[in-house]
Amino acid sequence: MNIAILGTGAGARQHAARLGALGHRVVVGTRDPEATLARTEPDMMGTEPFAVFHRAHPELTLATFAQAAAAGELVINGIDGANAVAALTALPTDALAGKTLIDYAVPYVYQQPGDAEHSWPTPWGEMPRLNPVDTDSLAEQIQRALPETKVVKTFVTQEQETVVNPAEFGGGDHTMFLAGDHQDAKAAAGELLTAYGWSDIIDVGPLAAARGLEMYAHFHTALGLALNGRFGVKIVR
Amino acid sequence: MNIAILGTGAGARQHAARLGALGHRVVVGTRDPEATLARTEPDMMGTEPFAVFHRAHPELTLATFAQAAAAGELVINGIDGANAVAALTALPTDALAGKTLIDYAVPYVYQQPGDAEHSWPTPWGEMPRLNPVDTDSLAEQIQRALPETKVVKTFVTQEQETVVNPAEFGGGDHTMFLAGDHQDAKAAAGELLTAYGWSDIIDVGPLAAARGLEMYAHFHTALGLALNGRFGVKIVR
Repeated sequence: MNIAILGTGAGARQHAARLGALGHRVVVGTRDPEATLARTEPDMMGTEPFAVFHRAHPELTLATFAQAAAAGELVINGIDGANAVAALTALPTDALAGKTLIDYAVPYVYQQPGDAEHSWPTPWGEMPRLNPVDTDSLAEQIQRALPETKVVKTFVTQEQETVVNPAEFGGGDHTMFLAGDHQDAKAAAGELLTAYGWSDIIDVGPLAAARGLEMYAHFHTALGLALNGRFGVKIVR
Repeated sequence: MNIAILGTGAGARQHAARLGALGHRVVVGTRDPEATLARTEPDMMGTEPFAVFHRAHPELTLATFAQAAAAGELVINGIDGANAVAALTALPTDALAGKTLIDYAVPYVYQQPGDAEHSWPTPWGEMPRLNPVDTDSLAEQIQRALPETKVVKTFVTQEQETVVNPAEFGGGDHTMFLAGDHQDAKAAAGELLTAYGWSDIIDVGPLAAARGLEMYAHFHTALGLALNGRFGVKIVR
């Protein structure tokens, strides 16, 4: 299958590498491929330059956002929440029309350490603020901006390293969630999750349920700090 | 132990009955005990009149909020989120000073069906809005209003029927969470949870973590609708 990953961050790389290993033809989209490949320093999150990652994964193609989106039968949005709507709506209209778009971004508006306007202080450090929150979600904003695209919210309740490899801990016995207004798109996302190794996938309903999935971010962060490590969420019923 | 439950709603009744059965002396607080006992109709949530519940639980004492709080060594706030801060700060100053106050309210400002100002439409019906959300929590508001009280946020990630009896499903193999700025108060809440039957309790950190616990409400609601029933959350690590 031809799959496009929009974005070159740490999460996007996890999906690109895993989907390449699963035998898919993966095109990774970035704003400016030359600039992406020219970077030689880790980013503020400590992620290694993309060129280093790309040398280890020559099976992946790097292209512009528009080229990648046009090439993908299924598209994964790995653009950060603060920039996703602007970047996606800047694409040619038909690049995403009729396609499944998986979005996993948390809509943090926080841009860098010390960004007090977009964070709140906590005993454990700055916590990014969410926007939208409660009465809207990033996934719904994307769906409204791209009415011909079929948006699915999933992956967002885990670090992406775990999403592509749920067996990393707990024997893989934990739960993944998806929300969306298009059943065929949710089925496509579910197949991809099954290929990643997920055996317990809950369809939490229409895309409005993405509000809860995105707002879970603060709980997830506090738990990760309390446990000092990664964890899975198993829905027991 | 003398335990006060402030509030007479369905959740408060679960704690009152369970703590009474565990042998504690329980005083249930309400704004106006005579008015509470005089009601003969179910409330808008379908909860039976308190007098019916009280006849089945004569071991429980009904009193004013102030009398109940004064009698309790440990206090459980079962007042709804929209009214909790006002009701708690109206109490005599020393009624809650130095005590552990467990808060489990979701800060919904929604008051009744059709309250469009405080809800958003979803494909599955009106969804109450949260206030505060993201940058503050109800638990922190209560803590700031009552600086001499030791507030613990817990119970909020489950229906209260499950909190008082986690073995109701999944063999009880799921997780409860607590947050607070006072270790002794969290230890007291943990002992109560252990008596209820919880074996996996995670301290998610300072009271600022209550933001994540409260904001989890939308995810929980969507999951409950998707699964058409109750469930537990097991943190796999």
